[in-house]
Amino acid sequence: MRPTGKLHLGHYTGALENWIEQQNLRAPDGSRLYETCFLIADYHSLTTSLDTSEIYGHTIDMLTDWLAAGVDPEKSPVFRQSQVKEHTELFLIFSMLITSARLERNPTLKEQVRDLQMESLTYGHLGYPVLQAADILLYKGSVVPVGEDQIPHVEITREIARKFNNHYPHPTKGEVFLEPEPKITKFSRLVGLDGKAKMSKSLGNTILLSDGPDEVQKKMRNAVTDTLKQRKNDPGRPEVCSVFSYHNRFSNPERLCSIEEDCRSGALGCVDCKRMCATAISEELAPILERRKQYEGNPGLVRSILLEGENKARVIANETMQEVRAAMQLGEQ
Amino acid sequence: MRPTGKLHLGHYTGALENWIEQQNLRAPDGSRLYETCFLIADYHSLTTSLDTSEIYGHTIDMLTDWLAAGVDPEKSPVFRQSQVKEHTELFLIFSMLITSARLERNPTLKEQVRDLQMESLTYGHLGYPVLQAADILLYKGSVVPVGEDQIPHVEITREIARKFNNHYPHPTKGEVFLEPEPKITKFSRLVGLDGKAKMSKSLGNTILLSDGPDEVQKKMRNAVTDTLKQRKNDPGRPEVCSVFSYHNRFSNPERLCSIEEDCRSGALGCVDCKRMCATAISEELAPILERRKQYEGNPGLVRSILLEGENKARVIANETMQEVRAAMQLGEQ
Ligand code: SF4
Ligand code: SF4
Repeated sequence: MRPTGKLHLGHYTGALENWIEQQNLRAPDGSRLYETCFLIADYHSLTTSLDTSEIYGHTIDMLTDWLAAGVDPEKSPVFRQSQVKEHTELFLIFSMLITSARLERNPTLKEQVRDLQMESLTYGHLGYPVLQAADILLYKGSVVPVGEDQIPHVEITREIARKFNNHYPHPTKGEVFLEPEPKITKFSRLVGLDGKAKMSKSLGNTILLSDGPDEVQKKMRNAVTDTLKQRKNDPGRPEVCSVFSYHNRFSNPERLCSIEEDCRSGALGCVDCKRMCATAISEELAPILERRKQYEGNPGLVRSILLEGENKARVIANETMQEVRAAMQLGEQ
Repeated sequence: MRPTGKLHLGHYTGALENWIEQQNLRAPDGSRLYETCFLIADYHSLTTSLDTSEIYGHTIDMLTDWLAAGVDPEKSPVFRQSQVKEHTELFLIFSMLITSARLERNPTLKEQVRDLQMESLTYGHLGYPVLQAADILLYKGSVVPVGEDQIPHVEITREIARKFNNHYPHPTKGEVFLEPEPKITKFSRLVGLDGKAKMSKSLGNTILLSDGPDEVQKKMRNAVTDTLKQRKNDPGRPEVCSVFSYHNRFSNPERLCSIEEDCRSGALGCVDCKRMCATAISEELAPILERRKQYEGNPGLVRSILLEGENKARVIANETMQEVRAAMQLGEQ
């Protein structure tokens, strides 16, 4: 995840929640199903903005939210790309294993540059999936939790892994890299409070993971509902209402059913509906707010967790690079 | 220089000789005019071949030739790109500061891919000048000795330095990077013994820097001369003769004058002319062969010089990266 500062509910339901679930999955014998690594992609953020003046504060804010949401640094090292040099080493090596024509055909990139002019696409932006391949393979990732739109990137990672393995078999271990599998996150983005397609900091239409119950109630009051439901007893259409989409995610199924009915019949007014919705959201956020207390206002603790994660990451990264160097016969002999 | 193994005379006159001259230049007060760094560009060699199976042997062979030719490791650290991770860090950062369109317009690249199909151009090959910018700026290079064809690359380095300085002023030092100046090497490539435009290992038309006098005489006997001069006393045309081009570089001016005259008049036969030429070359190579003795058959010594150079390079590289990180506000604070 790029260090964008405080996280909102969309980040949570779209990615973070899913990651934490993976972190905590257990095999039948009680052992952890996955070893998990959580990367703060600060170099990736340079592909869309060169302004780094707030990057450190954003990193600490985001990591605070990760920890509050349940990322357990004992289980999952957390670290910044820029603090583990091996990411860039593997990026360079991988850059020799893929053509630029292949990268230009990347559909996700094409989407990203539709608004930009292709002329202004930086070389690093074009190579985004190559850096991502390095991010994944440096830790011998076998499963990558991604959104639908990121699947082409994982495909590029797989191609690079295959190409490396073919060209550079390890003298004793055989293949250095696994071809990782994408794992589609089960819940997609939340719509914004303004009814726009997604929650986004720049649109100012978010509920933050760190918002307390009062703040959530306040924001919810301004949420866009069915514009045809003007008075309390007008019948409404839940399918066009942002509030209902939150209920859909945060309220339990029975509750959801009665809201849908009562909205359509006009028995439920938006004011009451929003109040229930805010409460449901705050109930889900309560343990996050509770866990947050130990980190908030203690950036030193968060920072030391980060530095420790980076030390752990460097150990793994270094081991992988030793295999890479041995396979490529680069370096001392 | 890429690690291509034993060097030939073309490498010497085209680059190495010039570098060593720069290494030894003194200011009027007796101090060295330049601090010099000599880079073994092993990552760059991946742009044209992924086969690394001989890269270590080639590195030691090439470095042995450097040392024999007068590279002084006390004055000039020698090191491999792949052993100083900071090259790849700076490469990644710089990749965000230049568009891929700009790199595609690079005339040297266009020449290189004329034979290749553009479709097969790797992403890393496209970024060759970005890695070169990192190679230069990591050591705060102020002067870069280059061939004519490399000037566009130095221009890219200058652009990147400027862009970095504009975006990321250092909190106390101001500009992190200098814009380096290209310095054109004064002597260009030698033609091959077969008369082809250049000496090249793959064409098998070279005299090696490590060839002894007998070997040089033997190779010279097969050199291509003016094909119209079939018998000893036929008049010849020095301007189309590869042997004369070597005289032009290795024989003294008076000798050169009489050879030209005697070739044209038919007074000089090719056999004698070649013998003189081989002798002139071997005279120039004699001190190199002499210096070579201490390194040849002692790869352990060469290796330890390399490792020491790499330690020195890392110290410089690390200092620069600390400035880069401070300017970008990346990392711990
Ligand atoms: S009652 Fe609830 S679901 Fe229906 S329009 Fe109002 S806020 Fe939306
Ligand atoms: S005499 Fe010398 S310069 Fe003239 S053609 Fe023969 S080798 Fe060349």
